[in-house]
Amino acid sequence: MKRGVVLLSGGLDSTTCLAIATRRDGLEAHCLSFDYGQRHRQEIEHAATVAAALGAASHRVARMDLSEVSRSALLDRTIEVPKDREPGRIGDDLPSTYVPARNTIFLAVALGMAETLGAEAIYLGVNALDYSGYPDCRPAFVKAFADLARAACEDRAPRIESPLLYLTKAEIIRLGSSLGVDYSITHSCYDPSAEGWACGRCDACLLRSRGFAEAGVPDPTRYTLGEAGRA
Amino acid sequence: MKRGVVLLSGGLDSTTCLAIATRRDGLEAHCLSFDYGQRHRQEIEHAATVAAALGAASHRVARMDLSEVSRSALLDRTIEVPKDREPGRIGDDLPSTYVPARNTIFLAVALGMAETLGAEAIYLGVNALDYSGYPDCRPAFVKAFADLARAACEDRAPRIESPLLYLTKAEIIRLGSSLGVDYSITHSCYDPSAEGWACGRCDACLLRSRGFAEAGVPDPTRYTLGEAGRA
Repeated sequence: MKRGVVLLSGGLDSTTCLAIATRRDGLEAHCLSFDYGQRHRQEIEHAATVAAALGAASHRVARMDLSEVSRSALLDRTIEVPKDREPGRIGDDLPSTYVPARNTIFLAVALGMAETLGAEAIYLGVNALDYSGYPDCRPAFVKAFADLARAACEDRAPRIESPLLYLTKAEIIRLGSSLGVDYSITHSCYDPSAEGWACGRCDACLLRSRGFAEAGVPDPTRYTLGEAGRA
Repeated sequence: MKRGVVLLSGGLDSTTCLAIATRRDGLEAHCLSFDYGQRHRQEIEHAATVAAALGAASHRVARMDLSEVSRSALLDRTIEVPKDREPGRIGDDLPSTYVPARNTIFLAVALGMAETLGAEAIYLGVNALDYSGYPDCRPAFVKAFADLARAACEDRAPRIESPLLYLTKAEIIRLGSSLGVDYSITHSCYDPSAEGWACGRCDACLLRSRGFAEAGVPDPTRYTLGEAGRA
């Protein structure tokens, strides 16, 4: 059975990617999550739940505290996470939640894992439409990383699959739903409560919430603020 | 003062790179080393000594156990480190000491650090002449990473400086010596003794030892095997 490495945060996008790798593309999926000092560390437990639910062959968690080298609201609780932004304006600028070079780092570790496993592809759930404006979620970045993989690993280089790149959040939710994804076990919020409830106000929550509304799919997320706090 | 991030293993090449960044290019150098599960973990202490000796502005050690995702003789003590290879044949194939995607991972973390610090360059001591045959030490790899950095960080992207790329080991040693580098504080061996003495027989030792001989510079390395064990 052919193998794929799936970068899995436990969020809506990467969970859909895992379903695509296993249920659409028929790969043996080896998931990789990161414990990198993120304030929404709860996502790692969601990733483990998602990996098990979608029948991943393995799930590894790489640990590296990026707060030692980088600065971001996701790494430093003294920096505020933007809230209540106009969903149509999210993505227009580089927000404080941007973690410098995060996707480059995640893909680099996935590349080593793919080479070791003999995997033919790495799945990355980036999306350049309903996204937070991070440059390392754009098509030019994905293409540049695929070129780098070929230079770094030669004929052992995996393909870089980013099947959500040109989809809206609503289209991603519809696609995942058609593949049987249960989004209630996923986590997107950048700033969850101690109990793991979503804030309903950060970019990730606003994009997710709007996506469910547009897709006409009930939003299973537990928001701290309840219905009133949603976009 | 302009800033540079220097990837510093504490070996001969990266130490020379640091001297180039500070003493030739006049940058404020911020060094980055990795505690990645390598069997020659002693190199990290050498890196700290080197950073202090060459006046680095900072030295950080990023920790991530690559043995959790990758396989290599440098990560797994049950895999043998090749010994006594013909120096002229080193680099012809991919040896068991290759760590999949290691330079991609190191550069990715350095990229995040450079973006955070506003550094204008990342210094990488790769060398495609007297090297172990790792594909991620070649010119095509360095160029591909520079392209990736521009896609990932846009106008905040640092240059990727690899000033040793086309130099022989002897030329590197002569250049470093001219910049006042004390190579006795550096460490290259893949398989050192518990006391930190070099084995004198692995690829790294053989290339280093031959480099000093060709440069006509006394080799300050403490080899377990003594003079007789050298190439």
